[in-house]
Amino acid sequence: MHRSLLLLSLLSLLLGGCATTTLRGTGDLGLIIERADGSVLIVESTHQQTLARIEGLGDLSHASVVYSRDERYAYVFGRDGALTKVDMLGHKIVGRVMQSGNSIGGAISQDGRLVAVANYEPGGVKVFDADTLELLADIPAAYGDGKFSKVVGLEDTTDNRFAFSLYDAGEIWVMDLRDARNPVIEKFRNIGRQPYDALVSMDGRHYIAGLFGEDGLALLDLWRPERGVQRILDNYGRGEQPLPVYKMPHLEGWALSEEHAYLPAIGRHEVLIVDRHNWKEAGRVAVHGQPVFAMARPDGRQLWVNFAHPHNDTVQVIDTVTHQVIATLKPGKAVLHMEFTPRGEHIWLSARDDNRVDIYDTRTLQHLGSLPVRNPSGIFFTARAHRIGL
Amino acid sequence: MHRSLLLLSLLSLLLGGCATTTLRGTGDLGLIIERADGSVLIVESTHQQTLARIEGLGDLSHASVVYSRDERYAYVFGRDGALTKVDMLGHKIVGRVMQSGNSIGGAISQDGRLVAVANYEPGGVKVFDADTLELLADIPAAYGDGKFSKVVGLEDTTDNRFAFSLYDAGEIWVMDLRDARNPVIEKFRNIGRQPYDALVSMDGRHYIAGLFGEDGLALLDLWRPERGVQRILDNYGRGEQPLPVYKMPHLEGWALSEEHAYLPAIGRHEVLIVDRHNWKEAGRVAVHGQPVFAMARPDGRQLWVNFAHPHNDTVQVIDTVTHQVIATLKPGKAVLHMEFTPRGEHIWLSARDDNRVDIYDTRTLQHLGSLPVRNPSGIFFTARAHRIGL
Repeated sequence: MHRSLLLLSLLSLLLGGCATTTLRGTGDLGLIIERADGSVLIVESTHQQTLARIEGLGDLSHASVVYSRDERYAYVFGRDGALTKVDMLGHKIVGRVMQSGNSIGGAISQDGRLVAVANYEPGGVKVFDADTLELLADIPAAYGDGKFSKVVGLEDTTDNRFAFSLYDAGEIWVMDLRDARNPVIEKFRNIGRQPYDALVSMDGRHYIAGLFGEDGLALLDLWRPERGVQRILDNYGRGEQPLPVYKMPHLEGWALSEEHAYLPAIGRHEVLIVDRHNWKEAGRVAVHGQPVFAMARPDGRQLWVNFAHPHNDTVQVIDTVTHQVIATLKPGKAVLHMEFTPRGEHIWLSARDDNRVDIYDTRTLQHLGSLPVRNPSGIFFTARAHRIGL
Repeated sequence: MHRSLLLLSLLSLLLGGCATTTLRGTGDLGLIIERADGSVLIVESTHQQTLARIEGLGDLSHASVVYSRDERYAYVFGRDGALTKVDMLGHKIVGRVMQSGNSIGGAISQDGRLVAVANYEPGGVKVFDADTLELLADIPAAYGDGKFSKVVGLEDTTDNRFAFSLYDAGEIWVMDLRDARNPVIEKFRNIGRQPYDALVSMDGRHYIAGLFGEDGLALLDLWRPERGVQRILDNYGRGEQPLPVYKMPHLEGWALSEEHAYLPAIGRHEVLIVDRHNWKEAGRVAVHGQPVFAMARPDGRQLWVNFAHPHNDTVQVIDTVTHQVIATLKPGKAVLHMEFTPRGEHIWLSARDDNRVDIYDTRTLQHLGSLPVRNPSGIFFTARAHRIGL
């Protein structure tokens, strides 16, 4: 081979090995879901910019994301049952499986080796190798007389376990994946009707499932599972049904300060405050509409709340010491999701119908800037990789 | 120019631009201090391996590390007053200033733009631009009649503030760096004699300074600074001086579970348990020696404790529900530091006199493997970038 040709070959090899982007850290990256287009944007929060758009992820109408422990790879759970692995540095899809017909989200194990997905159809949980997306375990959510339940509220916790709820069966299952191909499952039955979502506290200890079919929530202490599932906030007012439910609220591991948990009341214009020490109601905050997300700033000092239609142009900020609403913002049309930067100095808000993500300073509550995004919904920063239950 | 030469030039340019390492995430990286050699190792915790050694960092006998918000750059605080910026991907030093004669550590601001260093000589705090290491502010720790105090316990908190203690003056200062070149400082006087180290709770709310000169600790609620500094754990037994103090214990933002703070008692073979709701003593755990670090696993379920000479071959694990010692390990000679992986599945331990870092599974308490390291002391994973007060 001619020497120039040899060098040219070397050159292209190097260019390939060097990938399409320059060397950079991954701690300030994030993904934004473009729900209508089946695409995601890779963004970075230090200079508040978009780095790339990746297309071809299918139905992202209720999509969520978890990250590998090195913060390089995103696992995107699509509504259509697809699990897509995205390389945040290479800006491309590196793996994709259609793992069910209808899925509601997933989680990644404490050690980062396992990705679990909660499925509606067929009802159950599937567990995949995080490197290869090979199927390692398939757990049908069987109950009663050969029926299968939709699975919701799938959350990772410590000791490589996951907890999830069976919507149709009214059960909570805790799955130990020390041996991933042979899950050990502990079942808690009769936990209440229609658990619809759940959260794990940031310490991985408390799993709380919201109940759509009853007036309360179900609490499981994962450090004391022998005590069983306990009902909390019984009769908080869900049963009164004073308002039709426009959108189901979401529960997430965010809504906790040191002393309180903050839960969106179903169908009511209220955020419920729960004392974390006795799990009794500690108060309520009247808010602008039916809350969807009630998310605590990482330090727990503020709670940011968005709302169901027709109040979804509004976001309210609650001071967690005084429990007063300290600001009512109108960031844009159809605010679907919010995400704090890892240490909480900023918050990013999706304004779906304005095709825009807005960035606010959480100290001054000032608008800092915007990014154009097509019908944005979920925003997910890579720092989630290091947290339990997100 | 001959074409081959041109290609060769291009090749070398590309090699340079491509840097010396391949594209990779930075969420699973860490630094280990080789205290005797003035060097650091770059490690990664997914495959538990060493990636590079970097030399020329000076006196690292009491070194600590913080990270940029993208988790790419480490800021190493050396005992000799050097601040060194290390590129974790490029495997090289990219900035270095000799900023004082004797330094005890530092912190990075919530927004990642400012690095602050606590100095003994001359006593004060210096603030640097995290990108360029340009000096932005110099705050002498002046007190009394023209004297300057050693500064200790410098911690970042929310709203781009830092808190620190003046050892000689018995004061706590809170520094607001909204305008980095014009720090606004609030001083709390007469907080107790000889504050020697401090911690900030993970929510950035509580700053606790240990007192060497008195029998108690000083607590400042940063959300309610108007209430001033409060004494806690008064008369816990420091004053009895039953034992000489072989090594000063360290306080860090790690030692907190949801309900309790865990503090190493000075000079006593005890870990003090403090109720976080009323800040009163909630018990003590008798341990094997004088505790140095008492570190909570990220979920708060376990406390790992190492000890001063002559018990520094031992590590004990305490269950935070029962407050019983559940394991006594002998990992190696002179265990100086411990670091949990971000979600707590493993712990890395420095055995200085065995020239080794050991890795344990925190669930099974089994030894998983070791890395050869020259006289290791501090271990610091990049996940610290996303936390308040570390």
